[in-house]
Amino acid sequence: MKPFAQMAIKYDGEDLFLLDQRQLPGSEEWIRVPDPTTMLECIQELAVRGAPLIGVAAATALALFRKRGASLEDTQAAEKALRASRPTAVNLIWALDKMLAAEGEMAPEKLACVAEEIIQEEIDRCDAMGRNGEALVEKGEGILTHCNTGGLATVGIGTALGVIRRAHESGKNIHVYVDETRPLLQGARLTTWELEKLGVPYTLICDNMAAAAMAAGKIQRVFLGSDRVALNGDFANKIGTYSVAVNAKYHGVKFHPVAPLSTLDFHCESGKDIPIEMRKDVEVRGVVSPQAVQWAPEGAETWNPAFDVTPASFVTSLVLDTGVYSSAELAAGALKELKDEIVR
Amino acid sequence: MKPFAQMAIKYDGEDLFLLDQRQLPGSEEWIRVPDPTTMLECIQELAVRGAPLIGVAAATALALFRKRGASLEDTQAAEKALRASRPTAVNLIWALDKMLAAEGEMAPEKLACVAEEIIQEEIDRCDAMGRNGEALVEKGEGILTHCNTGGLATVGIGTALGVIRRAHESGKNIHVYVDETRPLLQGARLTTWELEKLGVPYTLICDNMAAAAMAAGKIQRVFLGSDRVALNGDFANKIGTYSVAVNAKYHGVKFHPVAPLSTLDFHCESGKDIPIEMRKDVEVRGVVSPQAVQWAPEGAETWNPAFDVTPASFVTSLVLDTGVYSSAELAAGALKELKDEIVR
Repeated sequence: MKPFAQMAIKYDGEDLFLLDQRQLPGSEEWIRVPDPTTMLECIQELAVRGAPLIGVAAATALALFRKRGASLEDTQAAEKALRASRPTAVNLIWALDKMLAAEGEMAPEKLACVAEEIIQEEIDRCDAMGRNGEALVEKGEGILTHCNTGGLATVGIGTALGVIRRAHESGKNIHVYVDETRPLLQGARLTTWELEKLGVPYTLICDNMAAAAMAAGKIQRVFLGSDRVALNGDFANKIGTYSVAVNAKYHGVKFHPVAPLSTLDFHCESGKDIPIEMRKDVEVRGVVSPQAVQWAPEGAETWNPAFDVTPASFVTSLVLDTGVYSSAELAAGALKELKDEIVR
Repeated sequence: MKPFAQMAIKYDGEDLFLLDQRQLPGSEEWIRVPDPTTMLECIQELAVRGAPLIGVAAATALALFRKRGASLEDTQAAEKALRASRPTAVNLIWALDKMLAAEGEMAPEKLACVAEEIIQEEIDRCDAMGRNGEALVEKGEGILTHCNTGGLATVGIGTALGVIRRAHESGKNIHVYVDETRPLLQGARLTTWELEKLGVPYTLICDNMAAAAMAAGKIQRVFLGSDRVALNGDFANKIGTYSVAVNAKYHGVKFHPVAPLSTLDFHCESGKDIPIEMRKDVEVRGVVSPQAVQWAPEGAETWNPAFDVTPASFVTSLVLDTGVYSSAELAAGALKELKDEIVR
């Protein structure tokens, strides 16, 4: 495999490294990933996160283990474990399906080749989403985003945050409102970090302030990511997305999920078919990252879905790399026609 | 003044003490309040919080300073400083107005007498709100609450949390969903602590999960407090209340602010007249209480209104100690008729 370096994943020709996103923005530490167990831990503990990046990371890791001489049996076991590591994001499954479909019973060279293709495809898709989404933005808009969808969540410029970056770079004089995104604070920790690096003006808010900011006229448009898009346009994304969607609809704020084609799941007719990952009490009782603090009582029962599902009826338009699909087009089955464009 | 002891304020005949709510639920520490400067700090730093309790605490402190021999001039200066300490909660202004209206140029005995009256009135009002609100609850309901409105926010059983307590005690088999209430986490730290003490079953959620919980059918009713109610029924409450209101309306969930008569402001025609306190960046960049952690970049700009305003059109009914007022009654001017019941 050729060496490559992205914001949160790199391969130096010898080793695969992941930026430990739990430590951001306090410190930038890279984790060496020598084996499938480490990769699995990194995904489950969210050292690596972001639906598109998880898919790329798992595929690359698999190719490298195989190249280093892992047996076919061990590689298949690793593939199975990685596949089950996060249930909601479909990009992971998509990437692993591509790896499995590689000819020659997972021949090392073939796997490396497919992993390289996946990386390049995802980079290109980010660029395409950036172009498609940027065209929607009007000058001077306040743009809300939720969770993190930039270079830390993808290879390339990102999905929703890639659109925001392009809108900034094209001089549209936007201002970004960043939802902190409890419980894991991907907005407060990661999106702020990326926007600082890019020099994009932003304001950090708590999730519960988004409605008041909309009522105050500060927000004209929402761009956020997706972990899985169903055939009818319903989509799963980070918990809190649905609350933003309801508020955006009420306030007449335009609302756009942004995703690469690899986020579409042709096995899901609607949002009802998307499994939602439930996570641990400890994340809601306090903050687990970067420094652990608990502020709720020890035994406090919590409800902690990692994602929620937003019905397509809340979507102004869905931004894919292949184009922009309005609410009406989604309802008319536009996504079903994309089936031929993706190999599953 | 007669000694008294409530959940978060007590007077032992010698000294006034406040429970330091910044330390909850980790530890229960009482702060002695020997002078107006300490009182002011306690209010501004949120060692004491909750609109009704702030009013009671300020009035009691003023009476005690005067009783201990503070000059009329010093007492008047203290009154002025306390009045300006938090701009949104009107109960503080109401209590201080009552103190100022005491006959005999703030005679020490008269001030003590008025402070005692204020305390007893607020206790009685909590009981009345509890009765009025409890009658609305149906068996087996899931009830969402935001911020903290119990014994820690009032003298007596509380406003919204007093209603919830009574509904639990009357065997209605309710389950409470507690919004954590960023940035200061009054739900996660204080409401959970009170519900644990009372043995009321609850589930702690992040603010951005309330919408998903409503969509999942877990929540049938919302009870929350208010810091100021305008004549038309619009009301200010802890930031995030408005987001809950929009979501409740969309999902057909019943929505009730609960407040004592002292929360009504007859000088505010509508929510537009309510001033909103803006607070510091540091609260949004991390958590300041009980342990300070910063997770956002050092210079991150924030927007941090302490409260938001919810239009009366979102209110199913407003629960006061004097009765329950439906949305239609509020629109018809029901609150204006209460003017005679309150001395301002």
